[in-house]
Amino acid sequence: MKLRTKYYDVDASEPTVLIHDDDCREIGVKENDRVSIIGLRTAVALVSRSDTLVDKGVILVPSSIMERCAVKEGEEVGVTYCQNPDSVRSIRRKMDNEKLSAEEIQAIVEDILHNKLSKIEISAWLTALYINGMDIDEIADFTKSMANTGDILEFERQPVFDFHSLGGVPGNKVTPIVVSIVAAAGIMIPKTSSRAISSACGTSDFVETFCDVELDADRLKRIAEDVGGVFAWGGSMNLAPVDDMVIKIEHPLGINPRAQMLASIMSKKVAIGATHLVVDIPTGSGTKVPTIEVARAYARDLMDLGEKLGMHVECAITYADQPVGNAVGPKLEARECISILEGNKHPASVVEKACDCAGIILEMAGVNNGSARAREILESGEAHAKFMEIVVAQGGRPDLRSEDLVPGQYVYDVVANKSGYIHAINNKDVVAIAKAAGAPNDKGAGLMIHLKKGQRVEQGETLFTIYADNEAKLRRARETALKYPPMTIEGMLLKRVSSIPVRK
Amino acid sequence: MKLRTKYYDVDASEPTVLIHDDDCREIGVKENDRVSIIGLRTAVALVSRSDTLVDKGVILVPSSIMERCAVKEGEEVGVTYCQNPDSVRSIRRKMDNEKLSAEEIQAIVEDILHNKLSKIEISAWLTALYINGMDIDEIADFTKSMANTGDILEFERQPVFDFHSLGGVPGNKVTPIVVSIVAAAGIMIPKTSSRAISSACGTSDFVETFCDVELDADRLKRIAEDVGGVFAWGGSMNLAPVDDMVIKIEHPLGINPRAQMLASIMSKKVAIGATHLVVDIPTGSGTKVPTIEVARAYARDLMDLGEKLGMHVECAITYADQPVGNAVGPKLEARECISILEGNKHPASVVEKACDCAGIILEMAGVNNGSARAREILESGEAHAKFMEIVVAQGGRPDLRSEDLVPGQYVYDVVANKSGYIHAINNKDVVAIAKAAGAPNDKGAGLMIHLKKGQRVEQGETLFTIYADNEAKLRRARETALKYPPMTIEGMLLKRVSSIPVRK
Repeated sequence: MKLRTKYYDVDASEPTVLIHDDDCREIGVKENDRVSIIGLRTAVALVSRSDTLVDKGVILVPSSIMERCAVKEGEEVGVTYCQNPDSVRSIRRKMDNEKLSAEEIQAIVEDILHNKLSKIEISAWLTALYINGMDIDEIADFTKSMANTGDILEFERQPVFDFHSLGGVPGNKVTPIVVSIVAAAGIMIPKTSSRAISSACGTSDFVETFCDVELDADRLKRIAEDVGGVFAWGGSMNLAPVDDMVIKIEHPLGINPRAQMLASIMSKKVAIGATHLVVDIPTGSGTKVPTIEVARAYARDLMDLGEKLGMHVECAITYADQPVGNAVGPKLEARECISILEGNKHPASVVEKACDCAGIILEMAGVNNGSARAREILESGEAHAKFMEIVVAQGGRPDLRSEDLVPGQYVYDVVANKSGYIHAINNKDVVAIAKAAGAPNDKGAGLMIHLKKGQRVEQGETLFTIYADNEAKLRRARETALKYPPMTIEGMLLKRVSSIPVRK
Repeated sequence: MKLRTKYYDVDASEPTVLIHDDDCREIGVKENDRVSIIGLRTAVALVSRSDTLVDKGVILVPSSIMERCAVKEGEEVGVTYCQNPDSVRSIRRKMDNEKLSAEEIQAIVEDILHNKLSKIEISAWLTALYINGMDIDEIADFTKSMANTGDILEFERQPVFDFHSLGGVPGNKVTPIVVSIVAAAGIMIPKTSSRAISSACGTSDFVETFCDVELDADRLKRIAEDVGGVFAWGGSMNLAPVDDMVIKIEHPLGINPRAQMLASIMSKKVAIGATHLVVDIPTGSGTKVPTIEVARAYARDLMDLGEKLGMHVECAITYADQPVGNAVGPKLEARECISILEGNKHPASVVEKACDCAGIILEMAGVNNGSARAREILESGEAHAKFMEIVVAQGGRPDLRSEDLVPGQYVYDVVANKSGYIHAINNKDVVAIAKAAGAPNDKGAGLMIHLKKGQRVEQGETLFTIYADNEAKLRRARETALKYPPMTIEGMLLKRVSSIPVRK
């Protein structure tokens, strides 16, 4: 039928038009059905119905759709029922626990990318994926489809190594150290990282405190091929962009379906052209991977998936029952990371984890005793020299020192209310405090943990220090720390747990 | 943080505000998270983010939320992160296939009713329900929670009988006949029906062509207690209103989870105060219930559920491989229905189905040989007299005759292109043609099927006649009939299938 257009100020997160109930009955559409809107060109939108907010004969149209149909306000458009995309049928097949073909998976991915599926449909897809899952063939097809939604890089220099951490443990600043060690050994590793999604500080959140992370694909390739290593933000390139659209729906549901997670990780590795990949699987209570058994299952899937994709994959299951190192928050983590590269004394956990992960990569490239060789490269200063080369190539200062990174000036010490041993440090509480202090947005915000699990503490001794860039957030972080005290003190040592990563 | 409000013309189907990306980071919210908006009062809304459609420091707020917070455009409001409702955790538990408590189910139902769950969350709920289902205890709790979202009627006169058809078969005009027979036998049956959801014509769609169906609860009670029977539209009363909100999300996904379907049916029966219920389960290809086995499973669930709810339930599994009777579409079905009550000759299918269903109700009320007694009441004219009493009580004309119902004047005969036997009549194609002709909105639209399965047809003989209220829709229906011919003719009779309903 013909309806007169009227602007509708704001473009909702999905293309929606508002039509009077009577007109909807005439067209034969219900709430959340689709219509074709035919002006000089045609666009498809979801239907919202009302008998009060819109007059009969009028269609409320957001500006993006006005443009797509090439019509102006007040002009008439044709409005007809439009069938659901075929991919909705495939979503229903996944609800029925059927195996999807490569073509079906590709259609779903492309329809999400091109905004052709509604929130309702994407939510049903993710829920079906969460419950019914996918087999490895489907995940491999899913990975390729996701990678194909964006650019796929090709390097002159081969092989292309990559490193990925499943995350979920705060203070995990090992990536620039691993990249520097590996590149110093003459192995190319063009590493892209993410910003924090639900954590207090992603790798890019702290790396950008001392150099650019927003590199385009050309600059990333040039630096990788010249210097050997990069630590860029993946979001500045067009790598598997459909992922970001999915995260918006996963986030409110608090789910991350295994198939989606695996395809999401691996599609970015396919897009970057990786031939060899090491995946760090932080394992422990309060992380995404609670037990060694779950970690082994992930490792197996990742390695199988690598085989299907023609990528050599190895996994490192690492200890993650407490934060890695002492610092949590952008500048604090940057300071600790650089300080380790500078050769200063630090708790073993960061150094050991970085050297073990780098060691696996070295061995994949044919080096014997990878972990020991990685430690030599770190201790000799070669890793630091390579790190500075990368920093300068990414626009950082050539005279960068760890002391340059000064955390927030609003500081609060949390002290022990009794003597004893540190029995537990709760990752989620640590993250909540750092976020309350303003991390990752406020670069100076975060906390320094002075004592780790198993260490002796005396009453009145400082357990951790909160940093913030302003007083209100410091107060908020203090309140969070009071409400969710992250460290538990017991009168005696129950069990000593060493932080040696488990190699698979 | 404080943001200045600005109107946002249209209220989307869920309460959404638009906030600048930088402000979102500051508040600590992501797309589809919730915020509390604090004016003189506080309201909760979903967040949509943008860095182009809204300025920093501004929040775009739809009028409904402006009102709820008691603020005017340009005033400042406080905006803070608001946690998800607890029911989101229960939805996640259903995704993990866990059994939900009565309290959890009630919280989900109430949060849907009060618009506290987003489309994304309701979609995940329905998908989880579709895949993981519920046991009978959960469905009983679900039914009670749904019934409690609206009014619950109480009748002076007891017991209260009810009749329900699962639907899915076109031309199913038996309800007014069943109600008239039962009420004529002195049994009270306050029947509420729905309008078409995906079909060509619901009971209310054809009943409203000859009397009012929009009765309020008081009028319904008065007529039921005085006259014994009613055929009202359920939507005009406040019975389990949450159902309508769920249908909006189910519809685009094309799913109707078994637990949702059962709770949805039974909640309306609880709300109407039914003590005895007969459910018609139309069974056959092209309906919701393809096989007798599936029908038996539904019957078992409905009877178990009745037991948990203290309601006496029996089921009739009826043959539904082709339309019931000859007429499909509002006025056409009304005409056929009244003509049967008037005692005119008609194909056995409608009469037999109506008498068998009414017979079960009579037997539940203590009458022997229910089906035979029902047929006596119909043939003696008692049913027609009671029907007219109800029609008049519902505002219809006392001199109503079947001939008063005149179908659309735009008519097209579809003729057989060869001789043979009618091998199949496809329900879905019949519905598609009737809808293309304008049903159920155009009251005169629909089709008359002149020959049923197993009957002999000669080349050139009319198979069915399409009726429409205007020429464009007649053309559309003709095209649909050409594209999806609903009747298959075979050279020889393969198998004779009689239309006798199967009693369980």
